[in-house]
Amino acid sequence: MKNYLEILEKALDKYTSQPHSPYMNRVFEAMRYSLLDAGKRVRPTLTLMFAEASGGTAEAALPFAVACEMVHTYSLIHDDLPLMDDDDMRRGKDANHIVYGEDIALLAGDGLLTLAFEICLCDDAVKAVGYEKAARAAFILSKYAGVTGMVGGQCIDVMSAGKITKENELYEMVNGKTVALLKAGCIMGVIAAGGSEKQIKAAESYAQGLGMAFQIRDDILDVTGDPTTLGKNVGIDEKNDRFNYVSLYGLGGAQILVEQFTEEAVNALDAFENGTGCLKEYALKLINREK
Amino acid sequence: MKNYLEILEKALDKYTSQPHSPYMNRVFEAMRYSLLDAGKRVRPTLTLMFAEASGGTAEAALPFAVACEMVHTYSLIHDDLPLMDDDDMRRGKDANHIVYGEDIALLAGDGLLTLAFEICLCDDAVKAVGYEKAARAAFILSKYAGVTGMVGGQCIDVMSAGKITKENELYEMVNGKTVALLKAGCIMGVIAAGGSEKQIKAAESYAQGLGMAFQIRDDILDVTGDPTTLGKNVGIDEKNDRFNYVSLYGLGGAQILVEQFTEEAVNALDAFENGTGCLKEYALKLINREK
Repeated sequence: MKNYLEILEKALDKYTSQPHSPYMNRVFEAMRYSLLDAGKRVRPTLTLMFAEASGGTAEAALPFAVACEMVHTYSLIHDDLPLMDDDDMRRGKDANHIVYGEDIALLAGDGLLTLAFEICLCDDAVKAVGYEKAARAAFILSKYAGVTGMVGGQCIDVMSAGKITKENELYEMVNGKTVALLKAGCIMGVIAAGGSEKQIKAAESYAQGLGMAFQIRDDILDVTGDPTTLGKNVGIDEKNDRFNYVSLYGLGGAQILVEQFTEEAVNALDAFENGTGCLKEYALKLINREK
Repeated sequence: MKNYLEILEKALDKYTSQPHSPYMNRVFEAMRYSLLDAGKRVRPTLTLMFAEASGGTAEAALPFAVACEMVHTYSLIHDDLPLMDDDDMRRGKDANHIVYGEDIALLAGDGLLTLAFEICLCDDAVKAVGYEKAARAAFILSKYAGVTGMVGGQCIDVMSAGKITKENELYEMVNGKTVALLKAGCIMGVIAAGGSEKQIKAAESYAQGLGMAFQIRDDILDVTGDPTTLGKNVGIDEKNDRFNYVSLYGLGGAQILVEQFTEEAVNALDAFENGTGCLKEYALKLINREK
């Protein structure tokens, strides 16, 4: 795992260090502020692991991993804006707009989203995997990041004003906000490696299981978690009377769901011949995570 | 020209009418509000004209034309937000955030930008031009829309707080805010049609000349224009003590520049064998436009 993180950090730095006009420095700075030395890199790590599981190399999948992390980071910057969630802190430091102002933060988000597609289709990517795979990977990223994916999930959250009351709606929101970009990350790894259609479907199932398990475990920790271990406050959903998987199924029922979704993720790995140990371990450690 | 507009409006409608979850309707509505029945469609029209000038068909270039207009529309929605230019009106109707709220307007912009890349790489696009051309066109769009293009130009505007004092800075801002996306629109048309490298360079020169001429003519009209004909107020730059091409070169000098840039645009058309009458006419009518 450590090796993945090292090559990811290096690549994230490289792809935001291109020469540019001094007049545009500020927006690059703001992009790098939120992108570098931050986050667990879950999505891009999955891209690299799925590339290897599909018989390819992490190196060839690197531009797609970087692109996925850029899309994730843009979504955090835009979500934190006062006009959306109005969060001052992110990943233990001031939110982007606190440091750079709301206008530059908006542009930093727009810039990262646009750069993600530039990197999927840049010379490095095309040399590594060819035009067809690069185009297919970028298409997947756009589809899952867009209005029928992540942006759509955020729309449900906004429209319900945090007051979701139907299970369908909750499921669609989690699918958009949490699951969609995990799917993009996993599938892009398979595509970069030239995996089969069956493996693409399996990567999608893995991400579906992993994402749902992660979210439901999050709902559980909001009730049972230790604020010190978690590094954030608990009891938020109950306090705000928010509908989630614990209010729907109770603590026990929710944990059973976590286990079912994790099993779904692990079973999906049967479609891969290469070492899927990391991917299995990744899913299993979510079942009982305390942070 | 009329025929181009008809097929464009139809395509813009089609690509935002895909089936989707009822929960996500609001962000689709907001996207369509700003995208449909609005604007002169300059960029996508250029995409279609350059495709034909390069020996291809407008039809094959249609997804790229649509994508370019989506990127233009997203930039208008985000620019109008209170945290940026705080404009209530756009194209004669209420700005997106006035109708849908700032949060949904942000998402509508994000959604349009992301959808633009999805459409460049969708089945229709790949069937029409193949993976390589679709990937190259989407790459061009991302490059010119991003931090070294349109987003970068907007960054210069924000950072100078409307108080640009250097000619270099003014040139870079106009290149980013006005010229970059025109370049993307023109080049994507050539790529979709399988035009040569020489034709790609020529399309870029045309857009450079056209964009600069357009902006400088805009600066002139801000002094000499009739508010009724223009449909907007004049004297804005002088009132705000803003540095522009008229304050730099005077009215006469600025008009000479308009003519020089227009000539540059028209000369670039020599690289094309097919009818470039429309493209020439388009550039020439800018020299003395009054609105």
